[in-house]
Amino acid sequence: MTKDMHATLPNPEPLDRSMTPELQHVIDTKTKPPGSLGRIESLALQMGLIQRTLRPRIERPAVIVFAADHGIASEGVSPYPQEVTVQMVANFLGGGAAINALSRAAGMSLEVVDAGVASALPPAAGLIDAAIRRGGTRNFAHEPAMTRDETLLAIARGAERVRHHAALGTNVIGFGEMGIANTSAAACLMSRLCDLPIDACVGRGTGLDDAGLIHKREVLAVALARHPKSADPLDTLATFGGFEIAMITGAFLAAAEARMTILVDGFIVTSALLVAHAVCPAVLDYCVFAHTSGEAGHRRMLEHLGAAPLLELGLRLGEGTGAALALPLLRAAVAFVDEMASFESAGVSDKGV
Amino acid sequence: MTKDMHATLPNPEPLDRSMTPELQHVIDTKTKPPGSLGRIESLALQMGLIQRTLRPRIERPAVIVFAADHGIASEGVSPYPQEVTVQMVANFLGGGAAINALSRAAGMSLEVVDAGVASALPPAAGLIDAAIRRGGTRNFAHEPAMTRDETLLAIARGAERVRHHAALGTNVIGFGEMGIANTSAAACLMSRLCDLPIDACVGRGTGLDDAGLIHKREVLAVALARHPKSADPLDTLATFGGFEIAMITGAFLAAAEARMTILVDGFIVTSALLVAHAVCPAVLDYCVFAHTSGEAGHRRMLEHLGAAPLLELGLRLGEGTGAALALPLLRAAVAFVDEMASFESAGVSDKGV
Repeated sequence: MTKDMHATLPNPEPLDRSMTPELQHVIDTKTKPPGSLGRIESLALQMGLIQRTLRPRIERPAVIVFAADHGIASEGVSPYPQEVTVQMVANFLGGGAAINALSRAAGMSLEVVDAGVASALPPAAGLIDAAIRRGGTRNFAHEPAMTRDETLLAIARGAERVRHHAALGTNVIGFGEMGIANTSAAACLMSRLCDLPIDACVGRGTGLDDAGLIHKREVLAVALARHPKSADPLDTLATFGGFEIAMITGAFLAAAEARMTILVDGFIVTSALLVAHAVCPAVLDYCVFAHTSGEAGHRRMLEHLGAAPLLELGLRLGEGTGAALALPLLRAAVAFVDEMASFESAGVSDKGV
Repeated sequence: MTKDMHATLPNPEPLDRSMTPELQHVIDTKTKPPGSLGRIESLALQMGLIQRTLRPRIERPAVIVFAADHGIASEGVSPYPQEVTVQMVANFLGGGAAINALSRAAGMSLEVVDAGVASALPPAAGLIDAAIRRGGTRNFAHEPAMTRDETLLAIARGAERVRHHAALGTNVIGFGEMGIANTSAAACLMSRLCDLPIDACVGRGTGLDDAGLIHKREVLAVALARHPKSADPLDTLATFGGFEIAMITGAFLAAAEARMTILVDGFIVTSALLVAHAVCPAVLDYCVFAHTSGEAGHRRMLEHLGAAPLLELGLRLGEGTGAALALPLLRAAVAFVDEMASFESAGVSDKGV
């Protein structure tokens, strides 16, 4: 990749940590034993640093779900047929999917983006058509899933969606995905970017049985062997990724650049973060890891990123559901900083006996 | 204890599990891979069984914080002076404590109960005066903390508070506590009711240093040696407990009897549950364990109860804060059952390839 191409990517700055002592003082003088709100206190500190304020806020929190199809699905790596991607996009638009219920419960706005599903969707209110290629990606068992141009275009479109929300005032964002067979794409990205054997990266996805799992491992091992390793993370993304994964990569970089707090969902979304992190490590400063997925491999992905996720609920659904479930913890972090009295203002003794 | 005394306690029934297949069918036919919402699905099942409905609801969720003082505080087992209990009650009433911010964020109503704090509180809107004995409990380093009559009265008053909320429509409830030195009371209850050495039960509470921790262990070991073991959990409660702990014991039993879903907070609240569970094991059927506290000992308490807590955030504040942080997960459970489409209604394929 040339430097020119890198220059077009969003370029988040490392977090400015100079306000840490001031923020920590605010947190420590609230009427509670120091540190007794645990992770909620670290979230408050992180959000304060990201927003450069002693009173962090949550403004117009949003989830963007990116949907796309994958050529690798034709290798029988998922128990569900490819049509389910389009059917589930229709379900998102109709309000009946898990992310609809959970984003509504969390008070998050929801946007659905067609990043390149297999068959055309009728125009619908609330659907953003950003499709890179009708029919989905190519089958990476035989050829790279995306061209370099497609990959860069998808990254740019993902970034564009985030900038749209930034302009509307969003300062907390999560990403979700839908795409039959996309755990296969994510597992290959993980294998290359974390330098782990494919068997450590492959899981049951939406629910493969033992035979299906063995088949998926074989297919992916052969596919990986077909493509030489590359030092360029965008080459790796082009080879194995998907349109939704590339868009989420761009979305991560743009959200960090816009100094949003980013709620990181599960296995697929984190695979996009692996790419974003390889391009620009500073993106992690803006990330809050929502949960450890039940999908085998996610835990080691998180270890690779040094992440400490908030929730461990055995989720393995995707769609951004983990991000929506974690948002209330950010609300709690903001609420305690904003609303709690200090020892001084409440007349409570903070002196040891 | 005579049978007559037991007869006055609330007496929850074991959960009727006959609706399990029907509820599980509703959960499994939602448009997601079966089981992919992990613990959120089990919460939905549990709430459906408790409420005996295929559409569980959350109605008027509430937190009741019980505050009391402890004679054992005079042994120097807490880094904070006893006055802090009363000061913090005033802080609850003024809206400036952590539980105020977090219950508000979670949309829970909050009630503060004086179960017996050391010095008189001025009458205040929102304060329930249920004090058993002004001045708090006796010092169990020398004598039992409570008489049997005080203990039974506290249990009855805790149950009464819950019935008040049941009459207002509350069907999800959490309990919190405030009481300088109450981790000492809870640690002794744990030692006796879980049959564990006191060192496995004692932690730093609000933040003891190493020397303070050693002192606390010594004080409690001596105190335990002074009182013979009893097979009656209410004797154990009377000897080491506190007015707030006894009220929470009664509150647990009454909430289960009223078929509420009960969000179990941290170390102190769980010590009350140990007593309630010893009296009536069925109470556990109604409990959702909100979190594992950072207070040493809580994990083993939870193991004793066979509990799988939802959150692991290093909280060690009490006040019911963990319960408030977990409520959004119950909201998510209710929302997905209520709002998600089924495979059939959404026209999504649930067939394997």
